[in-house]
Amino acid sequence: MKIGIDMMGGDFAPAEAFKGAQQFFEEEGEAQLVFIGDEAQITPLLSEYSFAAGSYSIVHAPEVIGMQEHPTKALKEKRQSSISVGFQLLATEKIDAFISAGNTGAMLVGSLYALKPLEGILRPTISTIIPKENGATGLLLDVGLNSDCKPEQLNQFAEMGSVYATHILGIENPRVGLLNIGEEEGKGNLLAQAAYPILKDNAAINFIGNIEGRDILLDKADVMVCDGFTGNILLKFAESFHSITAQKSINHPYFDRFNFEEYGGTPVLGISKPVIIGHGISKGRAFQNMILLAQKMIYTGVMQKMKI
Amino acid sequence: MKIGIDMMGGDFAPAEAFKGAQQFFEEEGEAQLVFIGDEAQITPLLSEYSFAAGSYSIVHAPEVIGMQEHPTKALKEKRQSSISVGFQLLATEKIDAFISAGNTGAMLVGSLYALKPLEGILRPTISTIIPKENGATGLLLDVGLNSDCKPEQLNQFAEMGSVYATHILGIENPRVGLLNIGEEEGKGNLLAQAAYPILKDNAAINFIGNIEGRDILLDKADVMVCDGFTGNILLKFAESFHSITAQKSINHPYFDRFNFEEYGGTPVLGISKPVIIGHGISKGRAFQNMILLAQKMIYTGVMQKMKI
Repeated sequence: MKIGIDMMGGDFAPAEAFKGAQQFFEEEGEAQLVFIGDEAQITPLLSEYSFAAGSYSIVHAPEVIGMQEHPTKALKEKRQSSISVGFQLLATEKIDAFISAGNTGAMLVGSLYALKPLEGILRPTISTIIPKENGATGLLLDVGLNSDCKPEQLNQFAEMGSVYATHILGIENPRVGLLNIGEEEGKGNLLAQAAYPILKDNAAINFIGNIEGRDILLDKADVMVCDGFTGNILLKFAESFHSITAQKSINHPYFDRFNFEEYGGTPVLGISKPVIIGHGISKGRAFQNMILLAQKMIYTGVMQKMKI
Repeated sequence: MKIGIDMMGGDFAPAEAFKGAQQFFEEEGEAQLVFIGDEAQITPLLSEYSFAAGSYSIVHAPEVIGMQEHPTKALKEKRQSSISVGFQLLATEKIDAFISAGNTGAMLVGSLYALKPLEGILRPTISTIIPKENGATGLLLDVGLNSDCKPEQLNQFAEMGSVYATHILGIENPRVGLLNIGEEEGKGNLLAQAAYPILKDNAAINFIGNIEGRDILLDKADVMVCDGFTGNILLKFAESFHSITAQKSINHPYFDRFNFEEYGGTPVLGISKPVIIGHGISKGRAFQNMILLAQKMIYTGVMQKMKI
């Protein structure tokens, strides 16, 4: 099992990526790590760590895609960038998963075009963990990859989210809720109205009906589906709540769970191989969590289970 | 200036409505109040209060629309209900504003059909106050009346919201932000993409561009426009945050400002007369605030300023 890590991606690369790798090995991580990046920058740092021989390898990628570069253009022009090389390695099965805290757009474009889409999937999606007020964990998707959706896409988000919740979050028979502005069938915008009967008829999921904004943090539905416009605004709103409470020194363990950086990144669902996109400000802990997540995703074969 | 109050609407009517009226007069409220409801229920209670002669009147309305009744059906069949009578009084200029904490759907249907729509307005809208983290106050709209919107509607929300923010919230030249999933023009779903240039070209507003979910609670834009699906989910999400923090006994003055019941109800914007819809659980303080808001809306003539 080989996990590729973009050593040039993120504000604190490559140092924090190495720290994350070290923590991963210290806590019995078993994958072989492939460090992708500029050898001149990463080799000197490598000497500070004592990774076991055979536990890692380096793939030289002399170029870097900056955080503000145009994704499609950058991927096309910088074929030797760490993100381009990562996707090439993944597409040719030299690695089994790819992690980067670099340019999010480039990671999304790479996921959509460098990899084969999964059989039957209309469009891949990205999700976020939702910390429930009772300690449970939910999944909200889409959170920004698909800002306009068709009803069948919400249905596929529900299926992919259910597979992910089952195999990665360990939730048995996850309850699926359609995010809406009323409880009864027939409520909502045209998209939600059209999606409801499709979700209701889908025997592959455990659909419990509509959920409202007030239910997101309650332990009502495990998998919560919506278009990526609504999901992205909600996610960023929740993130801001964390930073505002931190700034106002309002401390509570529940708020700590809104520190989305800790979760270590967002997997792209609906593609053939695990790709994990980290926050630009990822530190060692986030990298460690991303490597652990990649390992679990490879181990469970969760991506292939999402075929429809 | 006469303000009609539905004495039968809400979980704590009519007692808390009377309490709100008393508090209104105690703090130098100047309007004449018209208590609308079942005389048999409200007259005995009235004797507990010492309202000055001439400061109030009673209009008998023997029927009540229940909180769970179907709005259109109930309004049609219960012509003698307090909500129906309230709208009749408003439409015939017997009162200048109407307040109810009763059936929200019936209040919306009444606002749309019993009153003349305002000249040039495609569809009325409802908004919510947003407590900014620095103590300022913002306005988010639409929050549920229009779940599918056209770009021109968002433009009208921006205009109506700007008029309301100026005259009621006292914000000079309010900054208008388009709620979106990216900062640059061209980002977002089809609606946001199409609305951006219209907002940019509108000389009647102070458009500052896109704002993201993380900016809602920051003092970036005063008036924040979105479709009613997104706005409703956001509002209920924010409301739930207040109840969760209260339940976990996490106390902070900032969280108190998320107690939307305190604000005393939502005015319907884009109609010819002030209509204020209260929470079902409104207590005296909320009624008082609704009466004060109605007084201010009548005094400033804010509704007529929203003509386009």
